[in-house]
Amino acid sequence: MRRIALTIEYDGTHYSGWQRQENALAVQEVVEKALSALTGERIGLTGASRTDAGVHALGQVAAFDTESRIPAEKFAFAANTRLPWDVRVSASWQAAEDFHPRFMARGKIYRYRMYDGPHAMALYRDRAAHSIYPLDEAAMARCLAACVGEHDFAPFAASGSVVKDTVRTIYRAQLIRTGRFVDLFVYGNGFLYNMVRILAGTLMDVGGGKQSGDCIERALSTLSRLDLGVTAPACGLTLMRVLYDPDLPRADELFDQCVSGVIA
Amino acid sequence: MRRIALTIEYDGTHYSGWQRQENALAVQEVVEKALSALTGERIGLTGASRTDAGVHALGQVAAFDTESRIPAEKFAFAANTRLPWDVRVSASWQAAEDFHPRFMARGKIYRYRMYDGPHAMALYRDRAAHSIYPLDEAAMARCLAACVGEHDFAPFAASGSVVKDTVRTIYRAQLIRTGRFVDLFVYGNGFLYNMVRILAGTLMDVGGGKQSGDCIERALSTLSRLDLGVTAPACGLTLMRVLYDPDLPRADELFDQCVSGVIA
Repeated sequence: MRRIALTIEYDGTHYSGWQRQENALAVQEVVEKALSALTGERIGLTGASRTDAGVHALGQVAAFDTESRIPAEKFAFAANTRLPWDVRVSASWQAAEDFHPRFMARGKIYRYRMYDGPHAMALYRDRAAHSIYPLDEAAMARCLAACVGEHDFAPFAASGSVVKDTVRTIYRAQLIRTGRFVDLFVYGNGFLYNMVRILAGTLMDVGGGKQSGDCIERALSTLSRLDLGVTAPACGLTLMRVLYDPDLPRADELFDQCVSGVIA
Repeated sequence: MRRIALTIEYDGTHYSGWQRQENALAVQEVVEKALSALTGERIGLTGASRTDAGVHALGQVAAFDTESRIPAEKFAFAANTRLPWDVRVSASWQAAEDFHPRFMARGKIYRYRMYDGPHAMALYRDRAAHSIYPLDEAAMARCLAACVGEHDFAPFAASGSVVKDTVRTIYRAQLIRTGRFVDLFVYGNGFLYNMVRILAGTLMDVGGGKQSGDCIERALSTLSRLDLGVTAPACGLTLMRVLYDPDLPRADELFDQCVSGVIA
């Protein structure tokens, strides 16, 4: 028995999210089916991040066990011949027997893409969130800075979230304006359910002048969800990279590569 | 009677191209229907560029005549309420009575997006062309340089093309590598049918080591299509901007904005 790890890229537009569920098509299920057909086994995949419906991934990580003799690095090529074009396995390798994509993850890098202007964009309708209000990225960046470090991010958790420990650390957070686009990049040791989308929605409200510029600082003190803005739409969010122990020495480099578009 | 001009953005994936045709849905038809419903007239649109099936546009320009009293700049907002999300009117204005989007166009800027790597990308499956061969962008840039200037581009015309005069001028041509992506930008006074896609396909062949680095220079001398590479897929191509007389003084600036992603 070997444990094989995969890096998976997907366009989340037409999926109900990563996690397998009844009556809706999840990315997990699509990849499991391809791997099961390939190996003749019943494959169960464990993913690093349970991305929501409509959320994209460039670097989801997942693992499965198999008795198959297919060379580990060939699984990516073989799976891609059986997968729809909006899901791709970009790498496969043999992992340690006890490798667990979620429990062993030490950090994640997300991108949230927004743009402003009077009209929505055809080419980014499923890839970015639209603000009809001009986004003041300098005000957004000042507001964002308050979330860097270790904080109780309880106000950033979607209501109904069941997690007990809501303390997380954000190591890096950066905003980049390119023309109409404002990209938010965050790297943290973990994220609560909807945390990045609430962060992005709050920043869009601040950038559009609908929220005060100190609202994140205030929310981290009051712990009230009401001090924050809307939850931004799923389509703007992309899971860029999951980091494990061996990645940590070059975490800053990986983050900078995401920001500069080298990972895109 | 007023002549109204529009800037139109579209994701060409699900369309048979710009131009109205039987038994297939064209972008022109979709926009004409929205404008006809809006004005109660039978609207006929003239576009600047007859983009192919699958080709995208950020800056298609089109014009129509109307007796409607809708303020010129409101047409964009009104049309967008009736258009599918993969077609957006990004601006509308009153044009001169004799304005003709195609005949008066003085230049066009196109982007062709390619990327390399062992696996195709889910998120760019309809947006860029994939090369399994690593692309040597320095070799591509050297090859590309030969096409700048006034040349007989006959070898770059798709077979079956009926145009007589095949002399065109390319003012600027540039390649930008960002991570896996190589973006080709070209600005010329006009382009033959499939010219940018043949240029891009040839560069991909050169970048992948399948064509000699002087093939464009040679083709412009022999005028033989056989000296060039494949026609690259439609999905990598985007019409970025159509330039008219008033735009010419800042043509270089507009080109640089495309290259730097400020127009994207």
